Amino acid sequence: MVQLIIANKNYSSWSLRPWLLMTALEIPFEEVKLRLDFEEGSEFKRFLAGYTPAGRVPVLVDEGFAVWETPAIVEYLAEKFPAKPIWPADAKARARARSVCAEMHAGFVALRQHFPMNIEASLLEVGRRVLASEPAVVRDVQRIVQMWTQLLDASGGPFLFGGFSNADAYFAPVCTRLRTYGVPVPPAVQAYVDRVWSLPAMQAWVREAMAEQDFLDFDEPYRSRRAG
Amino acid sequence: MVQLIIANKNYSSWSLRPWLLMTALEIPFEEVKLRLDFEEGSEFKRFLAGYTPAGRVPVLVDEGFAVWETPAIVEYLAEKFPAKPIWPADAKARARARSVCAEMHAGFVALRQHFPMNIEASLLEVGRRVLASEPAVVRDVQRIVQMWTQLLDASGGPFLFGGFSNADAYFAPVCTRLRTYGVPVPPAVQAYVDRVWSLPAMQAWVREAMAEQDFLDFDEPYRSRRAG
Ligand SMILES: N[C@@H](CCC(=O)N[C@@H](CS)C(=O)NCC(=O)O)C(=O)O
Ligand SMILES: N[C@@H](CCC(=O)N[C@@H](CS)C(=O)NCC(=O)O)C(=O)O
Repeated sequence: MVQLIIANKNYSSWSLRPWLLMTALEIPFEEVKLRLDFEEGSEFKRFLAGYTPAGRVPVLVDEGFAVWETPAIVEYLAEKFPAKPIWPADAKARARARSVCAEMHAGFVALRQHFPMNIEASLLEVGRRVLASEPAVVRDVQRIVQMWTQLLDASGGPFLFGGFSNADAYFAPVCTRLRTYGVPVPPAVQAYVDRVWSLPAMQAWVREAMAEQDFLDFDEPYRSRRAG
Repeated sequence: MVQLIIANKNYSSWSLRPWLLMTALEIPFEEVKLRLDFEEGSEFKRFLAGYTPAGRVPVLVDEGFAVWETPAIVEYLAEKFPAKPIWPADAKARARARSVCAEMHAGFVALRQHFPMNIEASLLEVGRRVLASEPAVVRDVQRIVQMWTQLLDASGGPFLFGGFSNADAYFAPVCTRLRTYGVPVPPAVQAYVDRVWSLPAMQAWVREAMAEQDFLDFDEPYRSRRAG
């Protein structure tokens, strides 16, 4: 069985992606959870050094062989489990799914900076303030809305490419951010956000995120303690 | 025949990647070159709007179907031309190649910011100054040196995974940067940089970059005009 090394479920957006993908598609794996830490020499970094020179989670470990960086993990899983619908079956839809996932991998910098994933928090006032003062965040949200609207129209839904695929796993952290920061989106987009949020695999992640009694200052620009 | 939409050969590092990959592996394509421009409403942006909502090059166009974002283009080519050694044949080497390419796609931010690709320029003094004052750039260079050393050791060279593959195309812009900014690297790494630079496909790109009589202010933090 493969192992997936991740970090805090409340905060680690990159961990969520392959975790949700594998859980939703019933690919069995053993979870190894670390406490997120950016400091060189921390326990997090020392543990990871045995697996990845890049020093970040997620890492997939298959019989001792480590695969790091989310896109590489996804392609590795797609090759190892060809029967699982990780990517859309149609070649053009698959290419389109890879394009939008790659946009997520390297982009949406303003959205990610101002709206860090924080599943347990509700920061509606912060959301309003940021949207009023940061045009780059507004542009990122506009691109998300445009992208999801077009993809849902083209596929007919319920997910971006019809059935659940890696594209939905990739944007699941964005769904949680829209929720945490109360970002208003058109009804069809909100319905998609709600569908992702309601997935049993997503609900399992959310429950575990809520149950974490951990507060990471460096990922909390807007709070000094947990709400709950 | 597929088309590849790119921008200035002197400056556009993302354009170089699929162009070099396809040229070196003899995948025929028609080149469509635009003048790079970040402004909304520019000719560059207006032309691209017909192909990609992300508004960036490169874009691959196959019978009218557009694939944007370099990783998506590469996977599309790998599926369309399975006989071409775009990725290493061995599954683990292939996973490793995807990991390091994904590191490049989202990372090396300091290196990319302080050492923008500029093939025609020689900025050795700038290189010394940046390396002395920007520890994040030094860390990026260290990770490059570590990565290439390990991969060349493991594969035996001459390229990162033995024969030329997408991994080399991905790091070709870094090779040009090390050269432009005179970054000192260990001999085995320098030899690899020289091998990439000497590839006939790379030399063709370099010649065309040198021949461009264009100066893009926004990509020239260190000069006010071309040298030649
Ligand atoms: N490009 C990486 C991003 C991974 C990432 O940034 N992970 C964060 C946690 S969500 C991390 O490990 N940060 C630690 C650090 O950057 O030092 C991927 O695709 O997996
Ligand atoms: N993540 C993109 C990066 C593409 C990119 O940044 N391209 C630059 C030229 S090298 C561009 O078109 N910039 C225009 C802009 O950002 O407005 C990819 O993988 O292709």
